[in-house]
Parts: sequence; C-alpha cells; structure tokens
Amino acid sequence: MNFKEELNIYSQEVNFYLSRCVKGQGIPCELVKAMEYSLLAGGKRIRPVLCLVWGKMLGADTEQILPFACGIELIHTYSLIHDDLPAMDNDDLRRGKPTNHKIFGEAMAILAGDGLLTHAFSLMLSTPLPSHLVVSASREIAWASGPAGMVGGQVLDMLYTGKSTLDLKELQKMHRMKTGALICGACVSGAILARSANADDMDEKLARDYGQAIGLAFQIVDDILDIVGNEQELGKPIGSDQNQGKVTYPALLGLTKSRELAQECAQKAKNSLAGYSGREKGFLSELAQYIVNRVT
Amino acid sequence: MNFKEELNIYSQEVNFYLSRCVKGQGIPCELVKAMEYSLLAGGKRIRPVLCLVWGKMLGADTEQILPFACGIELIHTYSLIHDDLPAMDNDDLRRGKPTNHKIFGEAMAILAGDGLLTHAFSLMLSTPLPSHLVVSASREIAWASGPAGMVGGQVLDMLYTGKSTLDLKELQKMHRMKTGALICGACVSGAILARSANADDMDEKLARDYGQAIGLAFQIVDDILDIVGNEQELGKPIGSDQNQGKVTYPALLGLTKSRELAQECAQKAKNSLAGYSGREKGFLSELAQYIVNRVT
Repeated sequence: MNFKEELNIYSQEVNFYLSRCVKGQGIPCELVKAMEYSLLAGGKRIRPVLCLVWGKMLGADTEQILPFACGIELIHTYSLIHDDLPAMDNDDLRRGKPTNHKIFGEAMAILAGDGLLTHAFSLMLSTPLPSHLVVSASREIAWASGPAGMVGGQVLDMLYTGKSTLDLKELQKMHRMKTGALICGACVSGAILARSANADDMDEKLARDYGQAIGLAFQIVDDILDIVGNEQELGKPIGSDQNQGKVTYPALLGLTKSRELAQECAQKAKNSLAGYSGREKGFLSELAQYIVNRVT
Repeated sequence: MNFKEELNIYSQEVNFYLSRCVKGQGIPCELVKAMEYSLLAGGKRIRPVLCLVWGKMLGADTEQILPFACGIELIHTYSLIHDDLPAMDNDDLRRGKPTNHKIFGEAMAILAGDGLLTHAFSLMLSTPLPSHLVVSASREIAWASGPAGMVGGQVLDMLYTGKSTLDLKELQKMHRMKTGALICGACVSGAILARSANADDMDEKLARDYGQAIGLAFQIVDDILDIVGNEQELGKPIGSDQNQGKVTYPALLGLTKSRELAQECAQKAKNSLAGYSGREKGFLSELAQYIVNRVT
C-alpha cells in the first residue's frame, strides 16, 4: 500500500465518523444541514489524520482517539466558514462549491460555525481515555484554536493586509498562529492521548517540532499555489491573495526561495521522526513531503 | 448583608478575574481590546455567580472554581456579540454602549466572539480540580452552549421570527435551548465541580431543576421588559421583539399570565432548594426571586 492509499484509508475513517457526529443529537435539522454542508464537503482531513497517526505511532488505539481527531476537523471547518463571510474574506467558492453563507445566508453561516466549534469540544471531551489526558489534549486544542492561536492569527492577517512594510518575522508569526497552531495542536494532542500507552514529554516535544515545521510548509505552499495553482484543481480562484493586498512568502522571498524554504521545513519535520520506526513513521515522513509537493 | 450586597461581592470577584484573564497571554492587543470591550462592559454576571454559589453550597472552594465560572461568562459574552451582528439582530446598543461591531467593525466582532468562545474552554480546562470533574463540567458547558443548546436555540429563534403560528411548546423549547441551557449549565457545572466535596447525582439533578426553572423565568421576564421596561435602565431600545416579528410570552399569553408563569418558575426553583440550608441556599432562593422582579 502506497502513501496515497494509506492517506485515503485514514481519511475515509474520518469521513465516516464525521458523517454521523452531527445528526440526531437534538440539533435543529436546518442547523445540521448547514453544519454538514461544509463539514462533509471533502477536504484532505490532514489535521485529524495527523492526530490519529501521531497517536498510533506512539501506541494509542486509533478507534479511541477518532472522536477527538474529528473534533479538530470541526474546528478547522468552522474557521473556514467564518473566514469566507462577507465581512471577512468574502469568498464565494470553497472546494469548488458555493461557500456556506452563499447557500444558507450570513446569519446561518455564523451559527453553523459557532455550532461546529462548540460541538467540537463536546466530541473531544467525550474521548474514552483517562480524564487527565483528555483535559490536557483538549486544552492544547483550545489554546491552538483560540485568541493566542488561530483566531489571533486571523486578526493579524486582517491587520497586515495591505501593509507593505511587513517583514518575514511578522509574516511567520502570523502564520504560526493562523495555520500552524492547529496543525501543530493536532500532532501534539495525538501524542498526549498516547500517554496511557507510555508516550512521554520527549514524544510530545517531537510532535510539536514536526507539527510546527509542516504547519509552516503548508502555509508557504498555500501562498505558492495561489500564484501558480490550477483553479479547477484548487476549487477556488487563484490570485486572491494579491487582489486582497495580502503579504505572502513569494511576495517577500520570490517563488524559488519560497519553494526552498518549504522543502527545508519538510526536511526538518522528517528529522524530528528520526528516533521512530515502522509504518506510521514512514507515513508521517511522506506526509511532510506530500504537503510540499501537493497541487491542491 | 442583604442579597444585593452579596450579589455585588460575588460579581466583583468575577469582574476582577475577568479583567485579568484575557490580557498578556500572547493575544494580539487589538483582539484583546475588542474582547475586553464587551467582556468588561458590565452585566449582572448571573451565570458565573450561579456556578460559584451552587459550587459553594455543595462544598467546593470558590477560588478553585472561579476560572471555570468566568469561562461561562466569556461564552455568554461571545453569544451577545454574535447576536448583535448586522446579519443577526443588527443591534446598535448593548448595555447602553455601542455594540462590538459598531466600534471594531464586523470582522473584528466575529473574531472577538470566536476568541472569547475558544478562550473560555482554555480557562475552564485549567480548573485546578480532579480531571474527571473538569472533563464532565466542561462537557456540560460545551453541550449547553452548542448546537443542541444555545446555538441551536438561536437558529430556532431565527426560523420562528415572523412565524405567527408558533405555540407555547415551540416557544419554550426555543428558549430552553437559547437562554435556559447555559443558565442551567452554570448551576449544573457548579454542582459537578463540588463532587470532590461529596456532592452527588441528586445534587446535580436539583441544580438542573433549579437552573431550568430560573432559565425560563429569566426569558419570560426578558420578554416582559421588552414591552414595559425603561430604555435608559435597560441600556437598549424597547419594543425590538415586536419590531422584529418575534413571538414572545406576552404575545402568546398576555402580560398578566406571563408574570404569573415567571413567578411559578421562581417558586419551582425555590422548591428545588428545599433540602439545603445556610447562607448560599438563602442567596439562591433570593436570586430566583430577583430574576423575576428585576427591571434591567
């Protein structure tokens, strides 16, 4: 089985859980519809897969940590819905489909986002593992997705838009918060949930190193694809960063240097796996490379 | 010390913690400003006080549960910011001050709400009590504020607006979710966090009964005040429910019957306190009456 097939199996597992986790829980059906519209619109499921595979590599039972991993995808989805709103990026298309507010209206889109975010914590806090691990992993995700993480990064992105004097340090800080924190949190929470299987502080540190490196790589490649990507494959128009006056890696460093930096990050991520072995190590190593080589 | 003085002492304790819980944690200062603008705009702090006093009555240490209680107030504040947005209720005033988006713009208001909601879970999950209690209490709040609770109630409110055929059962269901769930969750989580001091299932049930009763009373009185209240005291225009085509208790039952129903709820809440004694019991009993008698 090659990397793509293995990724596919993991994301099918995630998709299956996601397709059942909102329905039939006393949630008004109009809200279920709006939440599921974005949640089940596809996507690579990289965050939950990272949580699952880090957990598995360190000895956790993937079935037990699946609800937690899927909670992270709910948080990612909420952030996309809110980002797309007219008051924010005002995007009409996401993954080739009309954005949530285009279908359900702005009010429902705001609430679908709020519903996914709160429901994510319900899922994560139902993880059938020792409570101290559940608290620790959930706190990690609350922090990563919060005002010192993803939400804060979104604010910086907004403040930096149109600002021509941004330097690389500021750009990296913004992306570490906006995109990197949740990707990193996914890896770290997987490592935390594996503690009952004897993962320790060092594993958590390595998961963090790996997550930070691929988080940065992910964002650099996102910026590159917004210039050289294929609209049809991406499912959204390219050139939107420039149109919106956003500072990007290619704008600051040029395309060649940006590609080199992304590759360096992938290498750094692979280095943090040096002490591990087996199938999951190989998968995580290929995933780091896949993030750099991806075209969507 | 009378009830008002005691309520004042509790809410000062809450205010003091709230004034420190956002600042200086790696959160961009523009976001801190927007979050604190609404968080520190006053308000009765009824939800955190309910959590503190239920916890205290059942033997918990209020200092230990204060971060948790304040997390609930962050969630309440986020919901107000999002409710006021142009796409939602489009309100310009809240507690006598311009609403969040009027000062900081719509995008920042959405993010300030998202930031408060996620930060609430960071605070709650940092409660220094046994992990299984922290998980259980946090899950209670995630559920109460989620798509089967507050967010779902907000959706129903939206769907029901302008619908003239609504009956009392539908109206109550909507309010039980929209307002009742978090008020109830505040009481229940206080009882859960007191379990290390020997509170048990029956205490949790009674906290739930009490919370459901005052949650309903709270909403009925809200509807009444929107008709007979004083704009200056309320800090917002009256008559907005009718202007927006919202179904209310007075519209369905008339003012007199609505007042009677609110009083019945207060009595039900008091009844659930029958087995307790001491200062906190007296306070919670007066609080139930205060919710019915309030003019703001």
